[in-house]
Amino acid sequence: MNKKVISHLMGLILALEAAFMIPAVLIALYDRDIPVMQSLLLTMLAMAAAAAVLLRIGQSRERSFYAQEGFVTVGLSWIVMSIFGCLPFVISRQIPSFVDALFEVVSGFTTTGASILPDVEALSRGLLYWRSFTHWLGGMGMLVFLLAVVPQGPGAGYSMHLLRAESPGPSVGKLTPKLGQTAKTLYLIYIALTIACCLFLLGGGMPLFDSVCTALGTAGTGGFGIKGDSLAGYSPYLQNVVTVFMALFGVNFSIYYLLLIREFRVALLDEELRLYAGLMIGSIVLIAWNITPLFGSVRTALHHSAFQVSSIMTTSGFSTVDFNLWPPFSKAIMLGLMFIGASAGSTGGGIKCSRILLLIKELRRNMQQALHPRAVRLVRMNDRGLDEQVIQNVNAYMAAYLLLFGASFILISLDEFSLETNFSAVAACFNNIGPGFDAVGPMVNFSGYSAVSKLILIADMLLGRLEIFPILTLFSRYTWDRSK
Amino acid sequence: MNKKVISHLMGLILALEAAFMIPAVLIALYDRDIPVMQSLLLTMLAMAAAAAVLLRIGQSRERSFYAQEGFVTVGLSWIVMSIFGCLPFVISRQIPSFVDALFEVVSGFTTTGASILPDVEALSRGLLYWRSFTHWLGGMGMLVFLLAVVPQGPGAGYSMHLLRAESPGPSVGKLTPKLGQTAKTLYLIYIALTIACCLFLLGGGMPLFDSVCTALGTAGTGGFGIKGDSLAGYSPYLQNVVTVFMALFGVNFSIYYLLLIREFRVALLDEELRLYAGLMIGSIVLIAWNITPLFGSVRTALHHSAFQVSSIMTTSGFSTVDFNLWPPFSKAIMLGLMFIGASAGSTGGGIKCSRILLLIKELRRNMQQALHPRAVRLVRMNDRGLDEQVIQNVNAYMAAYLLLFGASFILISLDEFSLETNFSAVAACFNNIGPGFDAVGPMVNFSGYSAVSKLILIADMLLGRLEIFPILTLFSRYTWDRSK
Repeated sequence: MNKKVISHLMGLILALEAAFMIPAVLIALYDRDIPVMQSLLLTMLAMAAAAAVLLRIGQSRERSFYAQEGFVTVGLSWIVMSIFGCLPFVISRQIPSFVDALFEVVSGFTTTGASILPDVEALSRGLLYWRSFTHWLGGMGMLVFLLAVVPQGPGAGYSMHLLRAESPGPSVGKLTPKLGQTAKTLYLIYIALTIACCLFLLGGGMPLFDSVCTALGTAGTGGFGIKGDSLAGYSPYLQNVVTVFMALFGVNFSIYYLLLIREFRVALLDEELRLYAGLMIGSIVLIAWNITPLFGSVRTALHHSAFQVSSIMTTSGFSTVDFNLWPPFSKAIMLGLMFIGASAGSTGGGIKCSRILLLIKELRRNMQQALHPRAVRLVRMNDRGLDEQVIQNVNAYMAAYLLLFGASFILISLDEFSLETNFSAVAACFNNIGPGFDAVGPMVNFSGYSAVSKLILIADMLLGRLEIFPILTLFSRYTWDRSK
Repeated sequence: MNKKVISHLMGLILALEAAFMIPAVLIALYDRDIPVMQSLLLTMLAMAAAAAVLLRIGQSRERSFYAQEGFVTVGLSWIVMSIFGCLPFVISRQIPSFVDALFEVVSGFTTTGASILPDVEALSRGLLYWRSFTHWLGGMGMLVFLLAVVPQGPGAGYSMHLLRAESPGPSVGKLTPKLGQTAKTLYLIYIALTIACCLFLLGGGMPLFDSVCTALGTAGTGGFGIKGDSLAGYSPYLQNVVTVFMALFGVNFSIYYLLLIREFRVALLDEELRLYAGLMIGSIVLIAWNITPLFGSVRTALHHSAFQVSSIMTTSGFSTVDFNLWPPFSKAIMLGLMFIGASAGSTGGGIKCSRILLLIKELRRNMQQALHPRAVRLVRMNDRGLDEQVIQNVNAYMAAYLLLFGASFILISLDEFSLETNFSAVAACFNNIGPGFDAVGPMVNFSGYSAVSKLILIADMLLGRLEIFPILTLFSRYTWDRSK
């Protein structure tokens, strides 16, 4: 394994992360919040030092870089980013426990939005901003950002492997012939949509700071609110803005690229998009029908149903009401959506609509083959035959998903919470949603779990966001086998 | 599709089922229970008439019989068997509702053991016997029985397709060169083990009728008790006998065949057997440790842990205590075992240990291939390379399992029970276990669900026992397409 390139890339990541902390420092400065400013600056110093060491170790002309290096770089850099990223909370004593601070920041980077804070409004604004910004950065991915901004020499063969390892979804399509250009395009769309969201919020009378943080959390489909009641206290207009933008950020970004280059037909006929939109609209209608008696009017029921469905399906996790009190049918649909999740190539989590689609197609193919063994059939998606390797990867992903999910569920149940709480806690973390049901419902938080359980849930969030393999690779005997 | 052979086979099945009701008639006669005797005889008459019609329709020399015919025969015959099998309960008014009676009998045939009876002890003995006997028949399969007893002419090519469609597990091995002989061997082992179980129960002082019914329910890993408190009222010795025999009936029967032909090494090194035994022993120890405070002594904790683990993992569903009151860690392990289930080729249900093993192996293969793309690797089981088709079938099975499970869970939640109740109700029915948690826990029953939910759970039991495809085939457009 080419450890030098990995070290080099991780050095760059840490340097970038330090740079991204500057706005938080400025906010703390504006607020004359000296302890927080100090904690941020100290962390930046530590990151700079670590970056310098890593970049020095990483000096090499050896350029070999394969899937393995891609997985290891992504897996390690997300862990290291999170460890450094949580230091300001620990140093400033605003989250004194390291495990709690790590939980909060991993929850941020992985766009989960699960919190251990009993009172989020007690956090100072510099840290609130940083917490929301981790959502934005984690949504599209730090390494994808690196690909977008760092000019790559002719020998830099790592782009594809990094993009594959960090971007969600069963198969990663190149938008443009050059990968650096693809990464740049993705981030430009991402920035434009984030700014649009922010402007719509400002236009509705939301204060600037709130708008920025909410837009960052919406864009990353993260779900960290800066208020104790998430978005319940804002006006219906502002809630609707968030509803729409969450749904938009759960769409595969290549659809926006297709729209930009005026390929409207291809974009709108995309099979994953149709499944995503169909499931979302269907769920909104069914839940609205189910909860109308609770809210008295169809209109209010539709408003809250749309918000919560958009929030859960895109795995954002914002809330306007306590959906834990909704009838079982609505909760069951939401639980289903938690697992299905958003689209591949979006900032959302979960299993992803395209994987669900592939599983259905694989199942149909298998049935046909069992009944008519002589016919050889290809699984097709958007009118193109799919590589069998993509299907195999989806199957391996599902197997790993189920096994790791089950193991996490059993381990955290040592904490004596109810089965429903534990199940939805793992579901909420693994699918990067945030709130679950019962004792981890939208109006409560994860602070009741033990440190061991929090570490397990931290692992689940990383496994979910990075789609398992980059993390598994770190624990594979094959990766560290020196003879290979 | 060759509808005539299907009709012929279904006629034979109904004739056999009528014959199997004779012991129940004799018990009713002995008890001078005229209404029950009449209801049984009336049902037998109806079955004989239907059988005569079907056999008449089925007269044909056309022998073509493929996988499709196998699936359709198995799917249809299980539905028809259940509809006729529940008539004695309806006619005698002991279970007046047809849906309830159907639920009870499907639960019997599929070896689920979930009951809608609020007071099982109120049922007359003839019907109690028939109810327990459905477990025994469904455990190994009615069509496998047919293969064992009906001599097959040289042109009868349906054996393999029927065995494949009715026997649980990802791949069905032939024990002997002739399939009729294999079916006979399986049933001989089955009968011998059932008699052994019955003798051990009699030896422990259990009354004859109780012993027979309990042995039938244990052999089929079904779980219908004839007492209101399942097995809680029997002595620890009797409970231990059932513990051991449930575990034995959860073993792949080809292991017993290997032992009979003195292939001890091959039998004991079997990978599925080792996983099954390992998981069972590990779970017993962990749960015993977790529940010792509840029972005061390690010995009693081990006794109850062993019984409940053996019961749940083999998907029997007998109980000696109310494990719904156990701590969450024990319940979480049990919930995991509910899904894993017993071995392929046993009478147990669930996903099956061999499928879990295959998923792990597939995952490992995929990881290795991602990291070293040039190596081509085969998935091996018991030192033999596996056909890729077997792996594909497991993947399709898992996809169908997850989709159908999710759909059932959402649909029955319209009944307003808790998420935990609904989730474990579907888990208990789909995996053919019987009791779940909360409102469907071991000391309560399924009578609270609406008729629609009961029909969904009936479908789940059939899907689980027949491993999805025979039932899906009945609803596939390809099956009934006349142009094919």
